Amino acid sequence: MTSLPDCETLVVALSGSTLFVTLNRPETKNALSDQMVRELTALCALLEGTRDIRAVVLRGSEGCFCAGGDISIFKESLSTPPPTDGGRDPLAIKNKRFGNFLIRLQAIPQVLIAVVEGVAFGGGLGLVSVTDVALCHADARFALSETGLGITPAQIAPFVVQRVGLTATRHLALTGHRFDGRHAEKIGLVHTVASDREALEKALSQTLKEIGRCAPGANAETKRILMNTMTMALDNVLDDAADAFVVQLRGAEGQEGVAAFLEKRPAAWTEQDP
Amino acid sequence: MTSLPDCETLVVALSGSTLFVTLNRPETKNALSDQMVRELTALCALLEGTRDIRAVVLRGSEGCFCAGGDISIFKESLSTPPPTDGGRDPLAIKNKRFGNFLIRLQAIPQVLIAVVEGVAFGGGLGLVSVTDVALCHADARFALSETGLGITPAQIAPFVVQRVGLTATRHLALTGHRFDGRHAEKIGLVHTVASDREALEKALSQTLKEIGRCAPGANAETKRILMNTMTMALDNVLDDAADAFVVQLRGAEGQEGVAAFLEKRPAAWTEQDP
Amino acid sequence: MTSLPDCETLVVALSGSTLFVTLNRPETKNALSDQMVRELTALCALLEGTRDIRAVVLRGSEGCFCAGGDISIFKESLSTPPPTDGGRDPLAIKNKRFGNFLIRLQAIPQVLIAVVEGVAFGGGLGLVSVTDVALCHADARFALSETGLGITPAQIAPFVVQRVGLTATRHLALTGHRFDGRHAEKIGLVHTVASDREALEKALSQTLKEIGRCAPGANAETKRILMNTMTMALDNVLDDAADAFVVQLRGAEGQEGVAAFLEKRPAAWTEQDP
Repeated sequence: MTSLPDCETLVVALSGSTLFVTLNRPETKNALSDQMVRELTALCALLEGTRDIRAVVLRGSEGCFCAGGDISIFKESLSTPPPTDGGRDPLAIKNKRFGNFLIRLQAIPQVLIAVVEGVAFGGGLGLVSVTDVALCHADARFALSETGLGITPAQIAPFVVQRVGLTATRHLALTGHRFDGRHAEKIGLVHTVASDREALEKALSQTLKEIGRCAPGANAETKRILMNTMTMALDNVLDDAADAFVVQLRGAEGQEGVAAFLEKRPAAWTEQDP
Repeated sequence: MTSLPDCETLVVALSGSTLFVTLNRPETKNALSDQMVRELTALCALLEGTRDIRAVVLRGSEGCFCAGGDISIFKESLSTPPPTDGGRDPLAIKNKRFGNFLIRLQAIPQVLIAVVEGVAFGGGLGLVSVTDVALCHADARFALSETGLGITPAQIAPFVVQRVGLTATRHLALTGHRFDGRHAEKIGLVHTVASDREALEKALSQTLKEIGRCAPGANAETKRILMNTMTMALDNVLDDAADAFVVQLRGAEGQEGVAAFLEKRPAAWTEQDP
Repeated sequence: MTSLPDCETLVVALSGSTLFVTLNRPETKNALSDQMVRELTALCALLEGTRDIRAVVLRGSEGCFCAGGDISIFKESLSTPPPTDGGRDPLAIKNKRFGNFLIRLQAIPQVLIAVVEGVAFGGGLGLVSVTDVALCHADARFALSETGLGITPAQIAPFVVQRVGLTATRHLALTGHRFDGRHAEKIGLVHTVASDREALEKALSQTLKEIGRCAPGANAETKRILMNTMTMALDNVLDDAADAFVVQLRGAEGQEGVAAFLEKRPAAWTEQDP
């Protein structure tokens, strides 16, 4: 059984093969602190090493997803003087660390699901952008609010481009436009919008049920192939995928899946909604 | 006149400058067999060599587009032992062949139209993903169902990413989510959804009429330029396109098109709905 | 204060920090002439050199955005003989110049807004495709009409792919399909569609108000980062962005923005709708 790490800023709970992760700094609307990013990164390390966990559900405490970066931390960080020896500014190193974290979170072998209520601003919108499935409440509010604060969504906007394309991102990033869950679904930021909390929980439950029918190893390989399309030429993606296809087909999951299909029964890995 | 090949798994008919191709293995819901892919590949060779055919309409027999790969063939193929000499697994070579086929089908100089009724699962969804125009019935059902069978949509998912983007594909490929024609249109998989069969035929007729007003050579060059954007840097795309523009403008189609416009008459190439 | 150039084909007016640019060849539905492209290019040079202007609003005179290239100019240009010395055809050089112009217009440090009424055909659709925010009237009409004229949207289609993706562009470019403002919004060509002129002006006013709350330098840096995602690998985009983030945070805008936020007051750069 997977042993879960102790966290200060997250509440982490395993139910069946689903890990529920709750951002838990409600006094700041779950703003991203250094500690929170460190704890999420430690979770990534754990998830990369296990196949027992098949889905990860990310939400925020007290009905609020994540208000983004913590402005008081930005203020504090200004007290760090720029380097005088020509080295790289420690604030740039720290900023890039968040981009590296999003790259790593995006690539975990599990299906990553965001359930968004309340706000998802700045870095919170970044988190949504790297998930495999995003569900939201129609009343949720989203914004790339950085330039209104005189700064730039440096480590976030590139992931928003990957998520919703350049066209929608230009509008959001250069106007700070606030939008709701329905608009989020229209531009493709989230996959499903629910009109109330009950519908939202039902959509989550339905998604977990669907994932419970998918072979975990096949899902992990498929996610790897999908991410390859971001960086590799099509022909190379397809060559790699052909080799992965055969390993999967000849392996235990492929043999079980084909047999279950022909015998018209659920495959052995099938899991109901936890 | 173009001479059409004899096919076992396809029904092929020419009407005016439009080639109607029907996947015709109704007993398997038009699942893709090796023979069918071979026959479709032979059609690609024919289409690459002619400009008399301007549009290709792809549908499935008996109101069903295509159920995807044939699971019983997957089962059979498992009897092929893996190579013992360190060579590439013949199952990987065969898998990659499907990706190569989709690349080739995607690039034919004609306008490729899919008309989707019934189901488009797995490889069937792959076929839809490489068309220039896709029309579907609102009740059509789509899914990337592979990971539910323990395998991976290796040669299909990359084309779905190209079609609807990474965000929508992650959701579809990692949950096996079944969706209908309206959702297909919402995520951009198809261009038009029709509420009944009559409206579907009307949409096809309208599309063929529009294509009948476009100069065939200009369309072939434009399609080539569009596909270039997938693999070439923008500046190179534009340089190549500038040369293509001039060949087209100075050529017979350009001279006729400009003259017809100024004389307010249909251009010589104009064709009505076949 | 910025001194505005004299223009024959454009009406140019500054209000607050917003530059209003009107294409003004109403007798041709504001078709793009060589002179108009030269004058727009001169405006780009001016805009690249100033930060006093924060937004540029592009529209067409007499309620008509832009009918595209001028066909009578295409006809005239055919009288230029092809080069006999093996050099590049001057018509190709001229064609590519339009693509270079769109690349340059796309990259101006200001927020570029299109307000589309009437028609946006061919090159007019190209102009819309490179804006940061596009608003349109529901009755506006759009088309990539080139192949109906026997030519190819060589310098336009690649920007439409960047704007709405390959899937939607294939349909538009290979059928010449005419569509209205609602369809333009559905495929993501424009961000907002308004049902009447009053709503359109209100949407513009709202957009300018949002931009007025964004720090101009932060917006310019953010736009630069967004455009980088089109040509650079993600890791390089993020590294560059981290350095830009720190310059912005340590600079005047970052210090003012963080202070204003914590003091719950508008930042010094805030501008109301001009």
